Amino acid sequence: MQFASDNRAGLAPEVLDAIAREAAHRGGGYGEDPTTAAVTVALADVFEHEVTVYPVLTGTAANAIALASLADPWGAVVCEREAHIVVDECGAPEFYGGGLRLVPIDGEHGKLTPAAVGDLLATPARGDVHESPLQLLSLTNLTEFGTAYTAAETAELCTMAHDRGLRVHLDGARFANAVAGGAGTPAQLTWQAGVDVVIYGGSKNGALAAEAVVFFDPSLAATFERRRKRGGHLASKMRFVSAQLLAGLTDDRWLTWASHANAMAHRLRDGVGDLAGVDVVHAVDGNQIWLRTATDRAAAWAAAGAEFYDTTVGDLTTVRLVCDFSTTEDEIDTFLAMISTTARDMVTSEIP
Amino acid sequence: MQFASDNRAGLAPEVLDAIAREAAHRGGGYGEDPTTAAVTVALADVFEHEVTVYPVLTGTAANAIALASLADPWGAVVCEREAHIVVDECGAPEFYGGGLRLVPIDGEHGKLTPAAVGDLLATPARGDVHESPLQLLSLTNLTEFGTAYTAAETAELCTMAHDRGLRVHLDGARFANAVAGGAGTPAQLTWQAGVDVVIYGGSKNGALAAEAVVFFDPSLAATFERRRKRGGHLASKMRFVSAQLLAGLTDDRWLTWASHANAMAHRLRDGVGDLAGVDVVHAVDGNQIWLRTATDRAAAWAAAGAEFYDTTVGDLTTVRLVCDFSTTEDEIDTFLAMISTTARDMVTSEIP
Amino acid sequence: MQFASDNRAGLAPEVLDAIAREAAHRGGGYGEDPTTAAVTVALADVFEHEVTVYPVLTGTAANAIALASLADPWGAVVCEREAHIVVDECGAPEFYGGGLRLVPIDGEHGKLTPAAVGDLLATPARGDVHESPLQLLSLTNLTEFGTAYTAAETAELCTMAHDRGLRVHLDGARFANAVAGGAGTPAQLTWQAGVDVVIYGGSKNGALAAEAVVFFDPSLAATFERRRKRGGHLASKMRFVSAQLLAGLTDDRWLTWASHANAMAHRLRDGVGDLAGVDVVHAVDGNQIWLRTATDRAAAWAAAGAEFYDTTVGDLTTVRLVCDFSTTEDEIDTFLAMISTTARDMVTSEIP
Amino acid sequence: MQFASDNRAGLAPEVLDAIAREAAHRGGGYGEDPTTAAVTVALADVFEHEVTVYPVLTGTAANAIALASLADPWGAVVCEREAHIVVDECGAPEFYGGGLRLVPIDGEHGKLTPAAVGDLLATPARGDVHESPLQLLSLTNLTEFGTAYTAAETAELCTMAHDRGLRVHLDGARFANAVAGGAGTPAQLTWQAGVDVVIYGGSKNGALAAEAVVFFDPSLAATFERRRKRGGHLASKMRFVSAQLLAGLTDDRWLTWASHANAMAHRLRDGVGDLAGVDVVHAVDGNQIWLRTATDRAAAWAAAGAEFYDTTVGDLTTVRLVCDFSTTEDEIDTFLAMISTTARDMVTSEIP
Repeated sequence: MQFASDNRAGLAPEVLDAIAREAAHRGGGYGEDPTTAAVTVALADVFEHEVTVYPVLTGTAANAIALASLADPWGAVVCEREAHIVVDECGAPEFYGGGLRLVPIDGEHGKLTPAAVGDLLATPARGDVHESPLQLLSLTNLTEFGTAYTAAETAELCTMAHDRGLRVHLDGARFANAVAGGAGTPAQLTWQAGVDVVIYGGSKNGALAAEAVVFFDPSLAATFERRRKRGGHLASKMRFVSAQLLAGLTDDRWLTWASHANAMAHRLRDGVGDLAGVDVVHAVDGNQIWLRTATDRAAAWAAAGAEFYDTTVGDLTTVRLVCDFSTTEDEIDTFLAMISTTARDMVTSEIP
Repeated sequence: MQFASDNRAGLAPEVLDAIAREAAHRGGGYGEDPTTAAVTVALADVFEHEVTVYPVLTGTAANAIALASLADPWGAVVCEREAHIVVDECGAPEFYGGGLRLVPIDGEHGKLTPAAVGDLLATPARGDVHESPLQLLSLTNLTEFGTAYTAAETAELCTMAHDRGLRVHLDGARFANAVAGGAGTPAQLTWQAGVDVVIYGGSKNGALAAEAVVFFDPSLAATFERRRKRGGHLASKMRFVSAQLLAGLTDDRWLTWASHANAMAHRLRDGVGDLAGVDVVHAVDGNQIWLRTATDRAAAWAAAGAEFYDTTVGDLTTVRLVCDFSTTEDEIDTFLAMISTTARDMVTSEIP
Repeated sequence: MQFASDNRAGLAPEVLDAIAREAAHRGGGYGEDPTTAAVTVALADVFEHEVTVYPVLTGTAANAIALASLADPWGAVVCEREAHIVVDECGAPEFYGGGLRLVPIDGEHGKLTPAAVGDLLATPARGDVHESPLQLLSLTNLTEFGTAYTAAETAELCTMAHDRGLRVHLDGARFANAVAGGAGTPAQLTWQAGVDVVIYGGSKNGALAAEAVVFFDPSLAATFERRRKRGGHLASKMRFVSAQLLAGLTDDRWLTWASHANAMAHRLRDGVGDLAGVDVVHAVDGNQIWLRTATDRAAAWAAAGAEFYDTTVGDLTTVRLVCDFSTTEDEIDTFLAMISTTARDMVTSEIP
Repeated sequence: MQFASDNRAGLAPEVLDAIAREAAHRGGGYGEDPTTAAVTVALADVFEHEVTVYPVLTGTAANAIALASLADPWGAVVCEREAHIVVDECGAPEFYGGGLRLVPIDGEHGKLTPAAVGDLLATPARGDVHESPLQLLSLTNLTEFGTAYTAAETAELCTMAHDRGLRVHLDGARFANAVAGGAGTPAQLTWQAGVDVVIYGGSKNGALAAEAVVFFDPSLAATFERRRKRGGHLASKMRFVSAQLLAGLTDDRWLTWASHANAMAHRLRDGVGDLAGVDVVHAVDGNQIWLRTATDRAAAWAAAGAEFYDTTVGDLTTVRLVCDFSTTEDEIDTFLAMISTTARDMVTSEIP
């Protein structure tokens, strides 16, 4: 019962096949190869727009180098308080960005709200040399809480940002799950809404280590290649990274995999239903479900072999369960049976 | 006739097999997995010493993060003028090192000489706050010109460095080729000689994207993990990186592959023999051979389909030919036949 | 009626005299001079503790280099949302700190509260490599709103910080005003309370460009000199910076000047009294008073020649008035008369 | 006999007067004041060109921020091996420049030669993402060895730089001495020759701590203000910095002071004449003279009370003697008499 993260999964078979095909022959280095070129073509098709694409090896690098490409070292990036760039990247945005600043604000269920963003942006820039000017808005879709921004929600926030002169970055480590979940088409969720750069994530959707940074305006990418090389993310055997991406982009597999992961999360939610003492904390818009329950009960789940991340406040524990392309119905059902049993046991044990 | 680089190769079959095995199941994230642990055990065995090991994704990252871990932002790193960290990493050492400085000096055939290093180190540090103090010596083995430092040569330079208070970094992107070429055992070429940190390179020896940063004194690695994470080189699916490394470390395959590549380079050198008008520029200590010939002759080789890097000064062109684990005797012989023919043709064409 | 800032003032006559004395002869460079040595002696006396002292040229540099000396590039610094390091230094802390992070939280009247700091620190560090660990607490005394932390308040916050493993930085650009205002002795407000490094500000208290960074534990200052030099803040003619500081430290003039400035602020507050339509927003603990009034009334003050910074929200404007060592009773009384008249005029004009 | 550096001097009386005048009244902060505006006007007059001027507090900051404004973090700066930016700034250029690289090459008597620069620039840029592209040429006039570039020499180097797409920075910490020495007019030595940014140094020519960064094309200065603020070099009481600069720029005093210092250096050279056993190492184009003599003889000079910097190689010591605006003929003559006596004594003592 491994629900800790979708990055605990193995590889989608088609990804492995693609690696095996590249493995059998020599090829161009540093992205000068037909596979990498094909990724750009495929992503242009997915996004229905000309794109400038840079494969990199990790999501942290993808986010940080993209942010650094769009903000000055003295610039500031508005983002949700629990965003990956804030809490899980050890300051990679500040590092790549030469000391740029994140400005985290409260969201709801991981999503920035127009109200909160509006409040922040309502304060006009002082325009002096002393302040750290707001230059970017960073969104995440699927969010860290498994919720999705719809195309309309994305557009509303992007418009607010652009009206104040900010660019928009979209962390799409789980973009596939957002699209597969019905939040909108890739185009609707990005450039049509006003997103300037999006990370198309592969590592959490069946790949080994592959993310694509996608710009819709090549002029915004002027410094990206230098920053990528300088950060050690221009893999000499880039074609193997691209092969992973292309495997997913072929025949819409990226959506097939994400849809399956999403379906497993929904099966889990449906199975939890209105189980007493277990609350579903956030909407299940993708491949995650967050449950809140008594701490000793969550501990019992873990003791029964379920793996997940959790946080405890007082005597309540919130558990994050993530499904992936390879999660099976059996795994879900085993977990559901277990938590149902655990619940009964605990109730029993509580009644002397 | 692909001799441009050993990073143009595919994957060693055992590397692909190892990836496939990891692909079939879920596993721990961020290096918390048995495969990664096994890499450390295997490298301790290879180096005959306790080691602290950090897999990263590229050689540029490995070098830069290692240097940054051992030098202050105001420190200086002595290195050979043509070293990869100087000419091929877009300033990654300066980036990761917070603005540290490289001090390139002339070597011979890519190797730093005791004389040149001695001259530089003979000038005592001023010890004031204005200077950029020398803190590190960086070596490369196999060097960029395909030559190797022997254990004794390495030890002599390391001793000079340590006597002046410098630490020693060894870029081992082609360490396998140096060892396989008989320069010394891994232990002799590193900690026994005085090397503090070595990059054990995988990407140029059959892997996809895998390098291991190996420290012999864990206290020197205190900040490495933070720097790796911050640079986006802590892969969530690290076990796949480790699997590549472990595949090579099993049954001494890393040496088998490197020995084969070296043998092909020697076959090439033997075949060139004393061919008129073609000079072998550097000793062939590993998997590379550098040839100097008339520029139009080198152009004829390229026109005939041979791929390689070259540099032209006046009407002479120097050609680098790199062999890899998958280079075949047929490829070598085809190339030799071609350059032999080209030579005859050119001679013929020059005689009216 | 210049109340914009205490950095608009000229020089205290004794500061000018001290500069003139240094001007008349040659002296050692880069702080190797008796005047600089005397500053350390004088500050040790002021703080009743051995101190390691580094004069620098501006408060922004003092803060940023001090923070960088105490936090890792991946560390985080807890501070009040309106602190100078957050809103007025263009990201200098991030720049000097190699990309460190500020974590601004809400205070009351510019002061961090034990409740808010406690809430933040109650969340235990995850202790993993992904987070940005809290490493520093930064206080400001006098605060940006003219309020002071007492010794007890400082100690309470420092203890919370130390208990969680954080060091404490104190921005003392207006430390003189806090001490002169009775918040506590220099010792009580710093090392006795748990402050690790304090900026003793001169530029806002009669000097030209002079701040002293004061460490109470020399081991914490290990990298400070390098960072200062590298930032261009090791003045070659440092003895002139030190002369400014020493002029203030002689005969407790720094307190005399600050006491005068504070007295002028109190005269202003007393004069405002309970003037209808004018609210005193923050306690007057030092040399500043913040008034909130109708926007058109504030505009009338400005039109009458009063200079100050203000911020407007809706139809209310908050005005900051800062007194300095040279502010005269006449200036205060002229301002008071003016705002009194303006009030009558406006009342009159409002009655048809 | 203080010849250690011109930064050991006191203040020119007119500088002190100017500070005193500013001291007597309040004024605008952060450069928003008439004195600062007047400096720009005065420098435009000096340089016979529209200029964008930024006063800063130290020469290290001036150089480093200027370089950072003109080069990318991955760019490289060609400079003379002994340049101040290389050997005396603790890596400030790398720090402000986000990890840019200095490429020091050998000069003659502190001056880059067209031959050496030509050799370096003759190698065409590879134009790939791996290299650190040359983006700037940095000159120093007066050089670190007291020699001057003429206008023609400057122009020749600038033309070579511009032809290769490099910008040109001129460290003019002792620019006054070069101009006063007859190297050329300010215009001829800068924009007419092709210099893009020049540091007009004050601290070594009678000021306290004042340098002006002068751009001839405002578009090149786009990021300077942010970088200056972020580095803590936007002094709140900037008008006092500007007052120092303006005092020198009034009535050509900067040239009067520098001419005097130069004359003293020439008097020293003339006095040394062809004294046996003492060689003048470099041309005396400004206010410095470098003498090479036996190490025990140099030691005798120091023992007799002369202060200077020296370097010893084998049994020969090279001594740098720097004159300033306040050096007197008596001081020169006393030194000359002393070294003459010392010579006789030593000769005597050597003959038994």
